[in-house]
Amino acid sequence: MSAPPVAIIMGSQSDWATMIHAAQTLDALAVPYDARIVSAHRTPDRLVAFAKGARDAGFKVVIAGAGGAAHLPGMAASMTSLPVFGVPVESKALSGQDSLLSIVQMPAGVPVGTLAIGRAGAVNAALLAAAVLALSDEALAGRLDAWRAAQTSSVAERPETQGP
Amino acid sequence: MSAPPVAIIMGSQSDWATMIHAAQTLDALAVPYDARIVSAHRTPDRLVAFAKGARDAGFKVVIAGAGGAAHLPGMAASMTSLPVFGVPVESKALSGQDSLLSIVQMPAGVPVGTLAIGRAGAVNAALLAAAVLALSDEALAGRLDAWRAAQTSSVAERPETQGP
Amino acid sequence: MSAPPVAIIMGSQSDWATMIHAAQTLDALAVPYDARIVSAHRTPDRLVAFAKGARDAGFKVVIAGAGGAAHLPGMAASMTSLPVFGVPVESKALSGQDSLLSIVQMPAGVPVGTLAIGRAGAVNAALLAAAVLALSDEALAGRLDAWRAAQTSSVAERPETQGP
Amino acid sequence: MSAPPVAIIMGSQSDWATMIHAAQTLDALAVPYDARIVSAHRTPDRLVAFAKGARDAGFKVVIAGAGGAAHLPGMAASMTSLPVFGVPVESKALSGQDSLLSIVQMPAGVPVGTLAIGRAGAVNAALLAAAVLALSDEALAGRLDAWRAAQTSSVAERPETQGP
Amino acid sequence: MSAPPVAIIMGSQSDWATMIHAAQTLDALAVPYDARIVSAHRTPDRLVAFAKGARDAGFKVVIAGAGGAAHLPGMAASMTSLPVFGVPVESKALSGQDSLLSIVQMPAGVPVGTLAIGRAGAVNAALLAAAVLALSDEALAGRLDAWRAAQTSSVAERPETQGP
Amino acid sequence: MSAPPVAIIMGSQSDWATMIHAAQTLDALAVPYDARIVSAHRTPDRLVAFAKGARDAGFKVVIAGAGGAAHLPGMAASMTSLPVFGVPVESKALSGQDSLLSIVQMPAGVPVGTLAIGRAGAVNAALLAAAVLALSDEALAGRLDAWRAAQTSSVAERPETQGP
Amino acid sequence: MSAPPVAIIMGSQSDWATMIHAAQTLDALAVPYDARIVSAHRTPDRLVAFAKGARDAGFKVVIAGAGGAAHLPGMAASMTSLPVFGVPVESKALSGQDSLLSIVQMPAGVPVGTLAIGRAGAVNAALLAAAVLALSDEALAGRLDAWRAAQTSSVAERPETQGP
Amino acid sequence: MSAPPVAIIMGSQSDWATMIHAAQTLDALAVPYDARIVSAHRTPDRLVAFAKGARDAGFKVVIAGAGGAAHLPGMAASMTSLPVFGVPVESKALSGQDSLLSIVQMPAGVPVGTLAIGRAGAVNAALLAAAVLALSDEALAGRLDAWRAAQTSSVAERPETQGP
Repeated sequence: MSAPPVAIIMGSQSDWATMIHAAQTLDALAVPYDARIVSAHRTPDRLVAFAKGARDAGFKVVIAGAGGAAHLPGMAASMTSLPVFGVPVESKALSGQDSLLSIVQMPAGVPVGTLAIGRAGAVNAALLAAAVLALSDEALAGRLDAWRAAQTSSVAERPETQGP
Repeated sequence: MSAPPVAIIMGSQSDWATMIHAAQTLDALAVPYDARIVSAHRTPDRLVAFAKGARDAGFKVVIAGAGGAAHLPGMAASMTSLPVFGVPVESKALSGQDSLLSIVQMPAGVPVGTLAIGRAGAVNAALLAAAVLALSDEALAGRLDAWRAAQTSSVAERPETQGP
Repeated sequence: MSAPPVAIIMGSQSDWATMIHAAQTLDALAVPYDARIVSAHRTPDRLVAFAKGARDAGFKVVIAGAGGAAHLPGMAASMTSLPVFGVPVESKALSGQDSLLSIVQMPAGVPVGTLAIGRAGAVNAALLAAAVLALSDEALAGRLDAWRAAQTSSVAERPETQGP
Repeated sequence: MSAPPVAIIMGSQSDWATMIHAAQTLDALAVPYDARIVSAHRTPDRLVAFAKGARDAGFKVVIAGAGGAAHLPGMAASMTSLPVFGVPVESKALSGQDSLLSIVQMPAGVPVGTLAIGRAGAVNAALLAAAVLALSDEALAGRLDAWRAAQTSSVAERPETQGP
Repeated sequence: MSAPPVAIIMGSQSDWATMIHAAQTLDALAVPYDARIVSAHRTPDRLVAFAKGARDAGFKVVIAGAGGAAHLPGMAASMTSLPVFGVPVESKALSGQDSLLSIVQMPAGVPVGTLAIGRAGAVNAALLAAAVLALSDEALAGRLDAWRAAQTSSVAERPETQGP
Repeated sequence: MSAPPVAIIMGSQSDWATMIHAAQTLDALAVPYDARIVSAHRTPDRLVAFAKGARDAGFKVVIAGAGGAAHLPGMAASMTSLPVFGVPVESKALSGQDSLLSIVQMPAGVPVGTLAIGRAGAVNAALLAAAVLALSDEALAGRLDAWRAAQTSSVAERPETQGP
Repeated sequence: MSAPPVAIIMGSQSDWATMIHAAQTLDALAVPYDARIVSAHRTPDRLVAFAKGARDAGFKVVIAGAGGAAHLPGMAASMTSLPVFGVPVESKALSGQDSLLSIVQMPAGVPVGTLAIGRAGAVNAALLAAAVLALSDEALAGRLDAWRAAQTSSVAERPETQGP
Repeated sequence: MSAPPVAIIMGSQSDWATMIHAAQTLDALAVPYDARIVSAHRTPDRLVAFAKGARDAGFKVVIAGAGGAAHLPGMAASMTSLPVFGVPVESKALSGQDSLLSIVQMPAGVPVGTLAIGRAGAVNAALLAAAVLALSDEALAGRLDAWRAAQTSSVAERPETQGP
């Protein structure tokens, strides 16, 4: 049985509070995915097995979230030629600045498409994965356009003062 | 006549010194592309026309490079649902830190897959675009794997002290 | 019917908690304004329509607030030659450092006069807009001077220890 | 005899290498100006005299450039209600990050419209000053529009590889 | 009647929560002081009057605390040759990084001896002022040595786990 | 045949300009070492083989240098329980700030003892490795003490003005 | 009687909330240690006595935690040739960025192996100390491997959504 | 024979290129000084001897310059109650940001009055030392006022365009 098109991997259980937003966005677009914990540092063998086998398993896109010295996205990208999108999880002391630089500053040769720090990045990783899949999936392209149109029309014309 | 699969856009002529590395990498992978100057700030109409028409023109992936208050990648992404990959061009005073944050910190809803600052980012944007296209192009997938294998075997076992 | 002299635009409803301070300051100076949500990323058409039509609508000054990869002020400035003042809204992970750099680091050719991050910036955008309008409005100049004189005389001579 | 509409002030002779770009831009728009050295720290009396007398002298807009602990724009703004635009001059050790924060982070009550670090900021301070003056000067508005149209049409369609 | 040896000035009432620690430290050392609100931006005349008159009033050392674009210490130093010690008050968005750079990065010619951000800086400004005054006040030198000795002996040998 | 006690690994040939200072310092202390290029991203298999086999090969300490999104030290540490010391190589755009954070901000469970950015860090990684080995090697402890004593006595009493 | 192999020193009682995690990790590995408060600034004599006597006392490794202008690790390292590992304690205003740079950026000649900011760094300093001691202690090497294996097997396969 | 009133200490010969500006400024004010190399890390005994003996030797003020993990000013201040002024020397990778934070962020209890990074800081440390000494030296107060007056009158009224 083939894997779903999107793998969501994250370095630890605590990253799920962020990465769940990627999952929920894929749910909204009816894109199947598999969410797993793969710690580059605590389970390096699991990382190697996952990354080397991702394409044969049937995955098309990898979304990887991690915080601090965030090596998961880049190391996954070093062992698969599938597109890898990285989500910097907000870290405690440095607010995700360490996560961002650890993910985005990859050397020439091994790309990670990096999204924003935190929840927005997780949502957008899902949208970007969907955009990639939509290149060869007309129905998904339609759902993605509808999602974006709904987003556009949800923006009110004028701000509203809200109670405390 | 349809456009090539990849559009490389950049904010100014001076960004070409960086973005040419994306072009050369696509050349090496035999992926056709079109390279254009589209300034978000100085030619906003050109930006709107490009971004809104990119999918119909036949583009599959957009690579956008810009520096400083780098709005080109995000604004392109706001007007197309094609995958957009952003390259922060190194800026003079802040060394591309402004470019990076302006590109990567997109709000939920409009994704830009961001690469490293400068040349490495340009090379990797091309590789990531190729990885996306390779999902539905076996031949390209093969060329990409070969490119990566060649890269791996080009790494010497031991460092060599070099003259000045 | 002509627009009021000042347009306050912001990227989302959540920015209103900051931008309301611009509105209240204009209220205090009896300067009419129009406050709208214009998202550069989620409603790019609205942005184009607003910015291109701002001068003909009768606006004199544009105040634009946005956070994160804050493209609204700069993109508005790219499509109008009215003075545009930008307010970096405090972002969650990076405390508005991303907002500030995305707004202030505009390339030569398209200016955005940028104020401080957050509430102080919103108040000051209003004061700066008033200072611009006061150049050709003696009565407003008088109200602005009075506002500043009141501010000066409100500063106590000595600090007072306050209860918890 | 009345002063020209724009005052360009700067903290030291060495800032002129940056601020001359404001002067040249005003020249291109045929906007008269007066360029002076006013050091907040070394000539505080000159600063007080200039700022307090700026409006009566006939100035309409003040452009102030300074580097490091750059107090000139904010202190000028504390003593005049004319619009003040600040240009952070690139500093040696911190590349203008100190200049930027010292100018832009003004407290509520005393605004400085801040432009980008260095040459781009100087050019844009001039353009913003012109935009302000153009609100009550149709001819200048025309020249400013022409300047911007020329800028737009000067952007080439495609990048050109240039020799070393 | 002569002023006490130390002037504590601060930009606003809200800075008192920080600067009170300077006052309390001077109290502990029996060094008289005068604490005043002097806003560089909102009360520039008060600043000029204070700084130009500080030496003749009898002050020996000036402690100045301010936050954000913190111009008070440097501007005071520009108008007096008394020693000025600056305390960067922690700012909301940037945690006092703006305050620190605005105070410490003074150009050659006008010194401000800068202390740490926040409470520690306020305590230390008082200790440094006392160290300066103690150069010509044996009794104060003794009290300062006693204060430091007490501090040294208050450091426990071993850490103690404390309840929540 | 057993490996020498110290392995120096680095991400690329270009890191050798920095890491050679570790090698030279070990030479000065007569500590044998093996220097290899092991790229976490371009040669992940080599990394796995090296790190998993390091202890059995006979290595005692690993020194790992890398720049940018520097994953080599942390990934080596994830696959060996030998002490790993990391050297952040100075990167082009961000001067090694990305390298430093990518190396030092490891999560609890997998330590990397991180040294300073650049040459100083390479020298110190060698000294720290020597200090570790000296715990069970009296002769090396003596050589290390001698090295440090020589360093101390090499510090002149007074500075000397030097020609250009 | 000889000292235990590990000394944990810290600048103040308040650092214990961080450094207790080093102690608890050593407890879990059955590595004896001694935890002391040694303030570089408030008890410099205690620092000199400790550092100069550390080796003769029988210590093998020094773990030093401090925050802000964190001089304790580096100064200890200047007076002992034992391996010193530094833990940057999270500071209030700058979140430990000052602590990190003050510890890690040591000049060539005096190394401090620096760990992450805060709790993770304290845990890892203990693990790194254990790795060093394990080089000549087979039983400890076994316990360390078991600790790491337990850590690896504690990582769940899939994330679990948790209640608020 | 008593020491001169000012001690200039620095961490290494290479700091002299910066600290010579403190010496030259003291020369211009006819303030005697003694310039020494005292490395906190490489010559800790020299540091202890200097700092503990500074007051009895007759010094009144200590100026200390250092770069990177700059511990010299703070450690000197921990062992003398004389006023200590710190000069952050510009470091290679981080441009003196590490030097600045290592010097200025001292904990409550041990003050270091910190000046700007680099040459300006060295000049200003000398001016601040002179301001302190001038409190009990009328002649020096006069020379300092004259120096500042000369500085003020040396500021030209208008900038001058200079050849390349």
